[in-house]
Amino acid sequence: MIFQLHPRLKQDTLFVMDLALSQLLLMNDERFPWLILVPRRTAVSEITELAPAEQNQLLSEIVALSKMLKQTYDADKINIAALGNIVPQLHVHVIARYKTDSAWPSAVFGFQKSIAYSPEKAMVAIEKVKSVVSNFLEILS
Amino acid sequence: MIFQLHPRLKQDTLFVMDLALSQLLLMNDERFPWLILVPRRTAVSEITELAPAEQNQLLSEIVALSKMLKQTYDADKINIAALGNIVPQLHVHVIARYKTDSAWPSAVFGFQKSIAYSPEKAMVAIEKVKSVVSNFLEILS
Repeated sequence: MIFQLHPRLKQDTLFVMDLALSQLLLMNDERFPWLILVPRRTAVSEITELAPAEQNQLLSEIVALSKMLKQTYDADKINIAALGNIVPQLHVHVIARYKTDSAWPSAVFGFQKSIAYSPEKAMVAIEKVKSVVSNFLEILS
Repeated sequence: MIFQLHPRLKQDTLFVMDLALSQLLLMNDERFPWLILVPRRTAVSEITELAPAEQNQLLSEIVALSKMLKQTYDADKINIAALGNIVPQLHVHVIARYKTDSAWPSAVFGFQKSIAYSPEKAMVAIEKVKSVVSNFLEILS
């Protein structure tokens, strides 16, 4: 079976790039620098369903993105979550949070209405993630 | 410096046991089987601040608890999250979710008012976690 992104993730996000294990997506919500990792595996909804080596790779990717958001995006706090109550395909949120953001200190999941990027802003945001993620190399395939 | 649990975590949770890296706590909220891992390290608020070996150990503990909640607690979905916007001490939520629980499919963080266990129910809940967690041995110190 070929990996296919869940339609809801496809609808809500912008594709950034493929990492060693996961597809890296940007949530289409300009309120928060909000990244999503989707391991390119079929029929997996829990981290426990990944092979141990894949779990470790996912951890590496989470850690790399967290460092990136902390250092390059000057986040006050990183929020990491694997929920999947609505979209069963395994995906991990890695979000830069700021004491000044509109949801702080609440979690962002389901927080009011998302604000989609304009096409121009989307391109800038995607390019920024792409260019800085390559400084956190060990995660790239 | 000696590890000390953040006062807010102390207030909101019940102590279960020490694992190899983390203190294992039960959220004092009978609405959800809600476990919390707190690595016994001082002045750490992000996963990236743990040493790589500690990150791997934390992953092992998360995976073990997830398996436990899935298998023994028959969870429909496991929710895993490291947020820390309110309590800066690094802690990871591992929560058994059910399609029939009161918050489904929303996240449980900040969802309405918690319902504390009665002393009797707390004892039963803690003993249950303790007895089943030892079947997931590799995480114990």
